Amino acid sequence: MKQNRPPLTAIPAEIRCAQDYEIVAEHFLAPDRHAYIAGGCGREITLAANRSAFDATRLWPRLLRELGRGHTAVDLFGRRLVHPILLAPLAYQTLAHVQGEIDVARGAAATDSGFVLSTLAGRTLEEVAPHAGEERWFQLYFQAERRHTLDLVKRAEAAAYRVLVVTLDTAIKLPSLRAQRAGFVMPEQVVAASLTDYPEPAPCVIERGQSRVFQGVMAQAPGWDDLDWLLSQTRLPVVVKGVLHPDDARQLQARGVAGIIVSNHGGRSLDGVPASLAALPAIRAAVGAGYPLLLDSGIRSGGDVFKALALGADAVLVGRLQIYALAVAGALGVAHMLRLLREELEVCMAQAGCATLADIGPAMIFKETEEETRC
Amino acid sequence: MKQNRPPLTAIPAEIRCAQDYEIVAEHFLAPDRHAYIAGGCGREITLAANRSAFDATRLWPRLLRELGRGHTAVDLFGRRLVHPILLAPLAYQTLAHVQGEIDVARGAAATDSGFVLSTLAGRTLEEVAPHAGEERWFQLYFQAERRHTLDLVKRAEAAAYRVLVVTLDTAIKLPSLRAQRAGFVMPEQVVAASLTDYPEPAPCVIERGQSRVFQGVMAQAPGWDDLDWLLSQTRLPVVVKGVLHPDDARQLQARGVAGIIVSNHGGRSLDGVPASLAALPAIRAAVGAGYPLLLDSGIRSGGDVFKALALGADAVLVGRLQIYALAVAGALGVAHMLRLLREELEVCMAQAGCATLADIGPAMIFKETEEETRC
Amino acid sequence: MKQNRPPLTAIPAEIRCAQDYEIVAEHFLAPDRHAYIAGGCGREITLAANRSAFDATRLWPRLLRELGRGHTAVDLFGRRLVHPILLAPLAYQTLAHVQGEIDVARGAAATDSGFVLSTLAGRTLEEVAPHAGEERWFQLYFQAERRHTLDLVKRAEAAAYRVLVVTLDTAIKLPSLRAQRAGFVMPEQVVAASLTDYPEPAPCVIERGQSRVFQGVMAQAPGWDDLDWLLSQTRLPVVVKGVLHPDDARQLQARGVAGIIVSNHGGRSLDGVPASLAALPAIRAAVGAGYPLLLDSGIRSGGDVFKALALGADAVLVGRLQIYALAVAGALGVAHMLRLLREELEVCMAQAGCATLADIGPAMIFKETEEETRC
Amino acid sequence: MKQNRPPLTAIPAEIRCAQDYEIVAEHFLAPDRHAYIAGGCGREITLAANRSAFDATRLWPRLLRELGRGHTAVDLFGRRLVHPILLAPLAYQTLAHVQGEIDVARGAAATDSGFVLSTLAGRTLEEVAPHAGEERWFQLYFQAERRHTLDLVKRAEAAAYRVLVVTLDTAIKLPSLRAQRAGFVMPEQVVAASLTDYPEPAPCVIERGQSRVFQGVMAQAPGWDDLDWLLSQTRLPVVVKGVLHPDDARQLQARGVAGIIVSNHGGRSLDGVPASLAALPAIRAAVGAGYPLLLDSGIRSGGDVFKALALGADAVLVGRLQIYALAVAGALGVAHMLRLLREELEVCMAQAGCATLADIGPAMIFKETEEETRC
Repeated sequence: MKQNRPPLTAIPAEIRCAQDYEIVAEHFLAPDRHAYIAGGCGREITLAANRSAFDATRLWPRLLRELGRGHTAVDLFGRRLVHPILLAPLAYQTLAHVQGEIDVARGAAATDSGFVLSTLAGRTLEEVAPHAGEERWFQLYFQAERRHTLDLVKRAEAAAYRVLVVTLDTAIKLPSLRAQRAGFVMPEQVVAASLTDYPEPAPCVIERGQSRVFQGVMAQAPGWDDLDWLLSQTRLPVVVKGVLHPDDARQLQARGVAGIIVSNHGGRSLDGVPASLAALPAIRAAVGAGYPLLLDSGIRSGGDVFKALALGADAVLVGRLQIYALAVAGALGVAHMLRLLREELEVCMAQAGCATLADIGPAMIFKETEEETRC
Repeated sequence: MKQNRPPLTAIPAEIRCAQDYEIVAEHFLAPDRHAYIAGGCGREITLAANRSAFDATRLWPRLLRELGRGHTAVDLFGRRLVHPILLAPLAYQTLAHVQGEIDVARGAAATDSGFVLSTLAGRTLEEVAPHAGEERWFQLYFQAERRHTLDLVKRAEAAAYRVLVVTLDTAIKLPSLRAQRAGFVMPEQVVAASLTDYPEPAPCVIERGQSRVFQGVMAQAPGWDDLDWLLSQTRLPVVVKGVLHPDDARQLQARGVAGIIVSNHGGRSLDGVPASLAALPAIRAAVGAGYPLLLDSGIRSGGDVFKALALGADAVLVGRLQIYALAVAGALGVAHMLRLLREELEVCMAQAGCATLADIGPAMIFKETEEETRC
Repeated sequence: MKQNRPPLTAIPAEIRCAQDYEIVAEHFLAPDRHAYIAGGCGREITLAANRSAFDATRLWPRLLRELGRGHTAVDLFGRRLVHPILLAPLAYQTLAHVQGEIDVARGAAATDSGFVLSTLAGRTLEEVAPHAGEERWFQLYFQAERRHTLDLVKRAEAAAYRVLVVTLDTAIKLPSLRAQRAGFVMPEQVVAASLTDYPEPAPCVIERGQSRVFQGVMAQAPGWDDLDWLLSQTRLPVVVKGVLHPDDARQLQARGVAGIIVSNHGGRSLDGVPASLAALPAIRAAVGAGYPLLLDSGIRSGGDVFKALALGADAVLVGRLQIYALAVAGALGVAHMLRLLREELEVCMAQAGCATLADIGPAMIFKETEEETRC
Repeated sequence: MKQNRPPLTAIPAEIRCAQDYEIVAEHFLAPDRHAYIAGGCGREITLAANRSAFDATRLWPRLLRELGRGHTAVDLFGRRLVHPILLAPLAYQTLAHVQGEIDVARGAAATDSGFVLSTLAGRTLEEVAPHAGEERWFQLYFQAERRHTLDLVKRAEAAAYRVLVVTLDTAIKLPSLRAQRAGFVMPEQVVAASLTDYPEPAPCVIERGQSRVFQGVMAQAPGWDDLDWLLSQTRLPVVVKGVLHPDDARQLQARGVAGIIVSNHGGRSLDGVPASLAALPAIRAAVGAGYPLLLDSGIRSGGDVFKALALGADAVLVGRLQIYALAVAGALGVAHMLRLLREELEVCMAQAGCATLADIGPAMIFKETEEETRC
């Protein structure tokens, strides 16, 4: 199979929970594309840690609580979201489905889900905007030149994206070993559609004795001044994605960033960093209650959403499940996956005795007592 | 194999310990029924945790103690049980054997074992009562209408069940993914026999924007007032099953509940909650010595029973071993499994130097000393 | 293969370390006999823990120490042993080799190794004595009648056994599930040769309602008074085998027992108890420096011997390696295995910088520092 | 395959990261030689621990830091190395490639890498010197006679090796079980070329009752006085390799040793000792900041280099990757492997926000907070 299998127009019977899209998608994606999407960087240690952090966390359910007025709504950046599950910004979703981000946006709109479009989306931000619901955000990569960055911001504002998500954890983007070993190369027709009008940045010139990394790629990497500049150029809330350290979180908060996404880029950026979930509690402690904190990397079920919220997140974003559902059944698949995930969250809340997201705090996480003795 | 294999009328030679029924039952149960019985909810993390919690607990045996007057008796709710191993309430045991709970009750009676009949039993509580021994308890699910709940209580009292076990941890009952994947659907002839005279509750009506979970299923879920009402309607001791949090345990104790069953429903209710055994010590600490505490979920051997007692339980209940033994050899199998389990407990007590259950305390659990150094 | 393969008369080339006898023996022993010897009780959790405790312990080697006058001698019960590796008492070694304990004794004598003959040896204590070296000990099980116990003691004294080892951790002896599943039954010709002159104890009579365990088997189990009586009947040092709890160790020391063997019977007595190595440090702390402490269960290499000594043992006993070597090459195999084990210990001492056993203390065990940070 | 496959003259396409040389080398080395190179001593517990210590360590990356002037230079023993990755001294590299250490030296020179030639190199130190770059060091084993040791030192000085690395952790050199089982014997043409002019030391004579280890091999082992003597005979900086204990480190520092290599000989010396990485923090704490500390054993990627530096090393040495790259593609392979490793380090530094090695400290290692709760 060199090409993707055509997506279905109906939900396959074997999808019984959101995570099943991960299993089924393998039959729809060309192997090299699947490797590109599923793989993580390096030895995939962080990729695995993202999952095991959720599996190792134990819920502590309560009984007999009043749940009849329960709901999943959350207030973020001055708006009320119906539920706390957003679609993470993913590059090049036309790899998985010819409609790409348009179908993703339609799935989000159909389920009242927040949606974040990537700078590297396969469809332009203007094409996608009308298909997304009200809760559409735009993810921004700093461009080599500020005027192109600013142009992107202004285009996103014009297309009524409500939040800017600035991703800061991928100074260097390399395809994973898994993708390379599967022979993946980006197909010609898959492009970052929103960027086609900007010229390619000039290739960096390295002098003898200089480093391709430090004096090459990193010469273009943004700094704190770039972030300050960006904050001065837009009235949209600016959220920073890719934070793992509480000191960075504190500094971002102090500079006026509106919120933070705790993320290791789904294990795709630097291998060996902690699971996002493991990094979360210290960051919540650093920014204090009330400051918007989101998390991605590793979410596969409503129970995972619950655990992230309990350990300090206000909302979560899902990446791989999104593109898997897209590959299997387009907009319909994305909508179905989101409905499943939200229902799984509601069932988990009900079983655990939480009527609203405000009830999901650290006290819902089981702590082994000292009375108990193992070896 | 679409149907169960007929049960044996003799004990097969390959049964050498109670847990062997788990192995052998796989050859007697239709695969989809086996999946329904053996599976746990979600990713089966709690199902696995139930077992690994026992395996990770270490006994600390003592030498040369006087054991000649040893016994396994335990006093519970004003009566003396010959041994502390009860049969947990399981729904729909006619799935495994045409006689269902009648044969289970006969196996319990033959071995002086406490027996708990489920509200969802495949045979009526009146049919089963004469076959059970003196120590028969009735497990109660709150019904949609109080008058039906009350009717069940009065019928149980009339049939001389001695204890009411109210299960509170399964607001939402879903077949496990494993069962769904095996194609399991409840056979038509398998019904909750004790409930057939009560009308089906009206399907809940959900308005647009409401949640099927919170405004649907959970609208019928019981609350603290329902529990208080129940306590006022019966003079039977009321035991609550499904407790994992010490604060719930304290509150139940304060309200007049007679005892508590620490349980995660055999890993069938909410995935990701702690092993029952892991939750036990904090609950014992919360309710204090002398308050009746039972445990289920994960028991497969007499050594497991010993560990549960050492960490704070007064008695235990076995679920899956019960229905496996039923599937293999009916009432005879159930009786044989219980005899094996009790003998395993006695051998463990003897080897560990405990003459009575009162000797089995936290001091019998090995603690690694600080002098010892690993890495 | 229903019978053992005949033992070799030379060392096979594939034996490169002591533990290799474990691998090679599988080709010499009939499968059911191998299962009986290799297996542990229950789920074999303790059997596995015995090994993993050694593997998880880390040595902390030192450099440049003076080793030219190094040796492995140890003083025990008034005598100097050339090295600290003794042969543990094993029952029925005629299962593995027609010469049984006679060949084991010859292997011990050839390597200056301490040797402990079991009460349940396949050859009589009088037959074996002349083949053993000076350092021969006798392991004693209390018999149903004191006069038979005393007779065994007097026979052992007469045959110049120097130490009595009283085993107290196997009130109930059951073949392992592994052995049962392999169809093992004790062959008729394999008997406890030293006991054939004593009448079988009368089968215990159990009344209705009594326990086969407590009022049956355990009625014959020894108590503290039996131990006191034994201590009064012999001038040989009495060592107790099967201790895992420091309180038992303290009490035995106070009663006049000459030494203790920390042991879980090679994982054959009660499943779920800690690894002998894990139990050792607390026992050393309880009895203080200078009190003789030995350890068995899990030793497979000279490095394991070193770890046991570092954590508090004065000497160790090997069980399974002994009978594996016997099965492979009789007395020659036993001698070769012991030579390998001792050389492995010497190499480990040399590499770790320890000239004598006195240098092998807790400081030779690596402790992870707090500066180091993992997750 | 009894012989090695001829090395390539170009880099194979399947090499995508430095560690890929480990995979590919298996197709180039004769199985017995591969076993000799890849294996570790004993049960290979330390061999595995070396790897798992790296995998279990988590990086804690920082955002938006200024990296444009980043570099990887490090000052060691009065000279500036371009990067902190050195080639560890390996014996007998002519096993892997006919040019042996000459090609290794050429690969080092081509990449500005420090290079350490082994006393047991397959090519003489004089042959190799002209091919190595400026940063060539000589690894010294004490010889049976001081005049031969001194001769080696003087020859190394004459050939302009800049540092002496004295290896002290292999008093006893045994081929691993893995190598023995693969039938490895050192081929006749593979010799320690630099030692051929010195006579074989006389075989040690052991008297009856003496130990081949203590009174044999160890009689020739060096002591503290030998080290003091060596320090007095050369003005080259003397570095000691094979240190795992902080007390040894402190004493070496006090005696005037110029630096220390924390090493367990790649898991080849004594099985059961801690991972080098695990031993590192306590040693850094013992010697204080500013004292040169290097580490080997387990490095397979630039991320591993970063972790070693973060936990206290100033530089690292790579052993197995070196000889694997040599086997695959000679000097070209060694150079390519080093370039990959350095680029991986630079990418890791950039992603983690470290412009120079001085930025890579313990603060870059993730610590799980107490707020987080797992079980």
